[in-house]
Amino acid sequence: MSDLKRAFLEGGHALAEAAIQAGCRFYCGYPMTPSTEVLEYMARRMPEVGGVCVNVESELEGINMVWGATGAGVRSMIASTTNGMSLMQESLSEMVLGRIPAVIVNMGRGQGDYNMCTRGGGHGSNPAIVLAPSSGPEAVETAYRAFHLAEKWRHPVMIFGDFLLSHTSETVTFEPPEDTLGPLPDKDWATDGARGRPPRLLTSLGMRITDAPDGSPLPDAQTRTDVTAPMRLAVQRHEEIAAAEIRVETHWLEDAELVVSAFGVPARFAQYAARLARDEGMKIGFVRPYTLLPFPAETFRRVAERGLPIAVFENNAGQMVQDVRLAVEGRAPVHFIGGISMDSSGFGVGPHIDALHILQRLREVYATRNAA
Amino acid sequence: MSDLKRAFLEGGHALAEAAIQAGCRFYCGYPMTPSTEVLEYMARRMPEVGGVCVNVESELEGINMVWGATGAGVRSMIASTTNGMSLMQESLSEMVLGRIPAVIVNMGRGQGDYNMCTRGGGHGSNPAIVLAPSSGPEAVETAYRAFHLAEKWRHPVMIFGDFLLSHTSETVTFEPPEDTLGPLPDKDWATDGARGRPPRLLTSLGMRITDAPDGSPLPDAQTRTDVTAPMRLAVQRHEEIAAAEIRVETHWLEDAELVVSAFGVPARFAQYAARLARDEGMKIGFVRPYTLLPFPAETFRRVAERGLPIAVFENNAGQMVQDVRLAVEGRAPVHFIGGISMDSSGFGVGPHIDALHILQRLREVYATRNAA
Amino acid sequence: MSDLKRAFLEGGHALAEAAIQAGCRFYCGYPMTPSTEVLEYMARRMPEVGGVCVNVESELEGINMVWGATGAGVRSMIASTTNGMSLMQESLSEMVLGRIPAVIVNMGRGQGDYNMCTRGGGHGSNPAIVLAPSSGPEAVETAYRAFHLAEKWRHPVMIFGDFLLSHTSETVTFEPPEDTLGPLPDKDWATDGARGRPPRLLTSLGMRITDAPDGSPLPDAQTRTDVTAPMRLAVQRHEEIAAAEIRVETHWLEDAELVVSAFGVPARFAQYAARLARDEGMKIGFVRPYTLLPFPAETFRRVAERGLPIAVFENNAGQMVQDVRLAVEGRAPVHFIGGISMDSSGFGVGPHIDALHILQRLREVYATRNAA
Amino acid sequence: MSDLKRAFLEGGHALAEAAIQAGCRFYCGYPMTPSTEVLEYMARRMPEVGGVCVNVESELEGINMVWGATGAGVRSMIASTTNGMSLMQESLSEMVLGRIPAVIVNMGRGQGDYNMCTRGGGHGSNPAIVLAPSSGPEAVETAYRAFHLAEKWRHPVMIFGDFLLSHTSETVTFEPPEDTLGPLPDKDWATDGARGRPPRLLTSLGMRITDAPDGSPLPDAQTRTDVTAPMRLAVQRHEEIAAAEIRVETHWLEDAELVVSAFGVPARFAQYAARLARDEGMKIGFVRPYTLLPFPAETFRRVAERGLPIAVFENNAGQMVQDVRLAVEGRAPVHFIGGISMDSSGFGVGPHIDALHILQRLREVYATRNAA
Repeated sequence: MSDLKRAFLEGGHALAEAAIQAGCRFYCGYPMTPSTEVLEYMARRMPEVGGVCVNVESELEGINMVWGATGAGVRSMIASTTNGMSLMQESLSEMVLGRIPAVIVNMGRGQGDYNMCTRGGGHGSNPAIVLAPSSGPEAVETAYRAFHLAEKWRHPVMIFGDFLLSHTSETVTFEPPEDTLGPLPDKDWATDGARGRPPRLLTSLGMRITDAPDGSPLPDAQTRTDVTAPMRLAVQRHEEIAAAEIRVETHWLEDAELVVSAFGVPARFAQYAARLARDEGMKIGFVRPYTLLPFPAETFRRVAERGLPIAVFENNAGQMVQDVRLAVEGRAPVHFIGGISMDSSGFGVGPHIDALHILQRLREVYATRNAA
Repeated sequence: MSDLKRAFLEGGHALAEAAIQAGCRFYCGYPMTPSTEVLEYMARRMPEVGGVCVNVESELEGINMVWGATGAGVRSMIASTTNGMSLMQESLSEMVLGRIPAVIVNMGRGQGDYNMCTRGGGHGSNPAIVLAPSSGPEAVETAYRAFHLAEKWRHPVMIFGDFLLSHTSETVTFEPPEDTLGPLPDKDWATDGARGRPPRLLTSLGMRITDAPDGSPLPDAQTRTDVTAPMRLAVQRHEEIAAAEIRVETHWLEDAELVVSAFGVPARFAQYAARLARDEGMKIGFVRPYTLLPFPAETFRRVAERGLPIAVFENNAGQMVQDVRLAVEGRAPVHFIGGISMDSSGFGVGPHIDALHILQRLREVYATRNAA
Repeated sequence: MSDLKRAFLEGGHALAEAAIQAGCRFYCGYPMTPSTEVLEYMARRMPEVGGVCVNVESELEGINMVWGATGAGVRSMIASTTNGMSLMQESLSEMVLGRIPAVIVNMGRGQGDYNMCTRGGGHGSNPAIVLAPSSGPEAVETAYRAFHLAEKWRHPVMIFGDFLLSHTSETVTFEPPEDTLGPLPDKDWATDGARGRPPRLLTSLGMRITDAPDGSPLPDAQTRTDVTAPMRLAVQRHEEIAAAEIRVETHWLEDAELVVSAFGVPARFAQYAARLARDEGMKIGFVRPYTLLPFPAETFRRVAERGLPIAVFENNAGQMVQDVRLAVEGRAPVHFIGGISMDSSGFGVGPHIDALHILQRLREVYATRNAA
Repeated sequence: MSDLKRAFLEGGHALAEAAIQAGCRFYCGYPMTPSTEVLEYMARRMPEVGGVCVNVESELEGINMVWGATGAGVRSMIASTTNGMSLMQESLSEMVLGRIPAVIVNMGRGQGDYNMCTRGGGHGSNPAIVLAPSSGPEAVETAYRAFHLAEKWRHPVMIFGDFLLSHTSETVTFEPPEDTLGPLPDKDWATDGARGRPPRLLTSLGMRITDAPDGSPLPDAQTRTDVTAPMRLAVQRHEEIAAAEIRVETHWLEDAELVVSAFGVPARFAQYAARLARDEGMKIGFVRPYTLLPFPAETFRRVAERGLPIAVFENNAGQMVQDVRLAVEGRAPVHFIGGISMDSSGFGVGPHIDALHILQRLREVYATRNAA
């Protein structure tokens, strides 16, 4: 089967196809809605391209298979949902230390996993790079980018979506990513067979120190393992990534008197609410972090330096709002206008994913913007 | 064997003995230094009090045994270390939702798990209450308090220590906690046998709605499960806990011109460094959060309102410092003076757990305190 | 890819291809030589026919996947080796009771698993039907027959081969089995979706008794589960299978003064040795059981009634020889001339798979045939 | 608690206490009736003697813990039931090869596991020594003997009982076994710490050949592993065990015209039936194999040489009867009078464990004894 060029696909399927076109040849997953669709697509499609798709027996086993396949130099991906992500946390922490450039997709049930994704749910606070597409077409582009960034930085990359991303069908176009993303380093670390070359070791357990600080080789008896080196290097790598890879979408900031911020597909609802608000005469700006980690703190800092209040909408109890507050550092008021979804069958008005609901919250905050 | 009253014990052993004296009758663990000592003590001691200690085959299995035992009404505890905690994240998230009042001990390898503990490493950001004792005697008291808070709030409680806490021997005194901690509610939720009463259900999967908003019973056909109710209630419970249970140790704040903050055993090094600094004439205050969650934000806010700079020492790459910044909101400068330990065999000067090292950092920050 | 018609293939590959042509659409396995080749072939070939191949995480998990797939009405197979078969024993025993018509391949390391296969290694002595092909072409035919017998009798079928079968390449021809094996009953037991019909239950745990012995329906209060019914029915089913399905290959029995018997590929060595012996003037007959269970006892009984001594060659310490003795019941002498292979690197002459070695043992037994 | 001397105990409890008095200090099990009682007793009792009892998460894990503990030189036992035994088959086969002298108890649900126990349910036909006590007092004695034989021969020993043995309470007396069973070799193979001595290796995977056949040391380049040596040695060991350890109980053979044979607790019913038959004037002898492996073939052969018919009663579909037929080799008729129990709620007359039922079958066989 030749590669798809253009199709009307659910976001989960679009992301899967894009991953394959980005060169992914190993995929595994355990069914859990709304990530099941990625697995189903991969199960059908991978054999057609000579790749492997495994329905693993648990997410814990899956992430370690992805570790192995990626370590052997194969572009590999796993997708799961919320609880399944929790089961991967030990391995994810270690994969950051071991520099395993895998792509991990969290098709969450809402946006409640923001902290888990961006703080590194596991031990040692070793998070991946985290990308949050807001539409099917952007999911396609994100799949390309995820594999690219993973290998560029030799660091795991997480794609954080939700049921809206997975289940909404949109027309998507697949274009070869080679044209746009730049060259990648050789995989001179891959354990892809040591015939004719020295063996390689992929490990999260420390680095062997063989040179003195002045660069001269140490006598054998003085070589040793520096167990915290991978942690210190991961911190340093995050700083370098932050300097180079932050991406954020902004609109209407020039005349804004209030800024609304959101990420993922819910950001489209927030953006639409902002547009409706502008139709009512409210001067609302819009900021959508695309890289959740590194976080576009500078964008928020600049907004806050103008004294503009910021309203943060998330489909959770308030998590990204902390990153906004850390960026703003008191320079301007930060309002949380999101919340945990209630079932549509629930009583009363909850923070549904609903542009009119967001609009109403914007009206409330806007009315008090000078009082803050 | 009668209960110990006073002994010279490693912190891990002291904590284990205190847990037993607090009524813990089920313990499980998987060996991993520095939590292994808790397991070893429990393996020997539990049979003497008619309790059960299981060396589980993995932490994932252990946390679910603790879920089961706690759910049956037995005070239960598990201890692990760093990586082992990551393996528990799915269950820990669900136990918060299911309101399972277990006690979980993370004897970390350093303090790098602060985010995992306080943000809820798992999905949905459902963290436990988190207590950080700074000495063996306080570990004893913390064991009492942990079981008390767990049942008072019907919420998991985590004790966050490190190798220093586990391995340092101190003289500890065991006193009956009944005298000091107040009454506890009946365990009217425990699945301890339904003979003669209606069955009970412990679940994280939602709440059955059987009443209309006005309190009148719904017709059967309209009853339904509100799946996000446990999440919204956990958020509300955290607010109530924050209003009632915050504990923080402070010293020398009255005349302070710089405040140093740290938690756990490293806080003792920081406190000693502050004392040395005061001997040199520097006016240093000291704040040690004992409850990491709920976090004593108000204490930091008040310090910051006086314009006092805050230096945060942690044995990690900078995690609690974010909570300090969130509390301060730009009202005063916040300096991070901690870091990831290097091996003692490493080259150069790293942020060792070393009072003189901390003192030096305090000198540096103090010198620039007015420039900030 | 169109179906293969004729190819030069290793026995393991030939068996896999034949299984697919027999309609097998689910396969799983865990690598262990010499069954790994079946897995490798299936991993490549299954996607081409729209089937599923899973590299399971253990044989224990694999056999239960096969249970599930077969129960859903899909022709399914698993292959393993010796140790891996041991791990399946609980499930295999229950699958006989539950009447799950799966095909299980034991590519053994020698012939030491004869007892495990024919006595039912697991509890309750619930063995499968056991077929032992002696060549690649017969392996092909056996794959067809195995799926046919499994569904004809609704009973698991085991194919027992060894490394010689798996690794020897021969030219094989694939012909549609529909022409030769007769009609099969409907799968009126398959749990393939209950829309529009009453649900079905596949269980090994007993049968629900709803009728009195006279056929009249029992009052509800008297219906009950007969837990040993599946065991008694399995015994009865084995008797019916024995009456209908025994297959055995014989040669030169008319003038024989000594009969040699063997099964599987080693039987080809024994047959060749018999031929060599006949060239030397010894009147040797040959019996090769193809169905090891049901065992062709009658063939041996008739030989023994003529007073002919029987020499049994197996590549183990003496297992089929017990079935021969049970058939013969003392009517003629039974000699064991097999043994456990020594490594080719071993010292001395051992019972290698070697026609000249077998010939020598036949000479010895023949010389004493009248003394027995 | 001092050792029990005399008590009225269920057979499962009596066996557990005797194991402890025989020095067992590691026990594990997974609950399954009727072996659960052994686990319950051990869970309470082991801590009192400084031993360890683990409720394992599956029988597969349990048998490997027993392997480890026994290998370290600790007398260790596991008990399970029927299905649980199937899960142990891989390990049991390997433990025979690796010469791990553990004690394994199969408290079966009936006697259907005779083949699994005596043929070695697992691969390679590597069975343990199998002992079948017929009463609580004999279970006590069997526990002593099992640990003794295990270490004497360095070979696993299985105790095969059933629900009747486990659940029937009898008065038992515990006497130190040291007086009666003879000296044991040193555990010069135990991996109990290599300080001050060369390391030891416990493995089932072959033996290292370092000497030429003439006893002279091989050059390093010629040393190698003989992978089948453990199998050949196990066969040889079984022959030595058969020569030394066969035990069988016989009664009334002198004047017998028909012999009834049975094993385990059902043998007591058969013996009582034989006694009732003698009261009716029938000359019935009685043979009860206590060692099922090695099997007392010689006893049956001598009976058969007198032409006496043998009636075999087992609570299964006919398994030991094959060993009887192999012993008799056609010299006398062998009748199977056992069967699979029907539920007491079942219709019709089944082969219940019922002396009057057995008596009736004896009358039938006796009546035709000269016609056979």
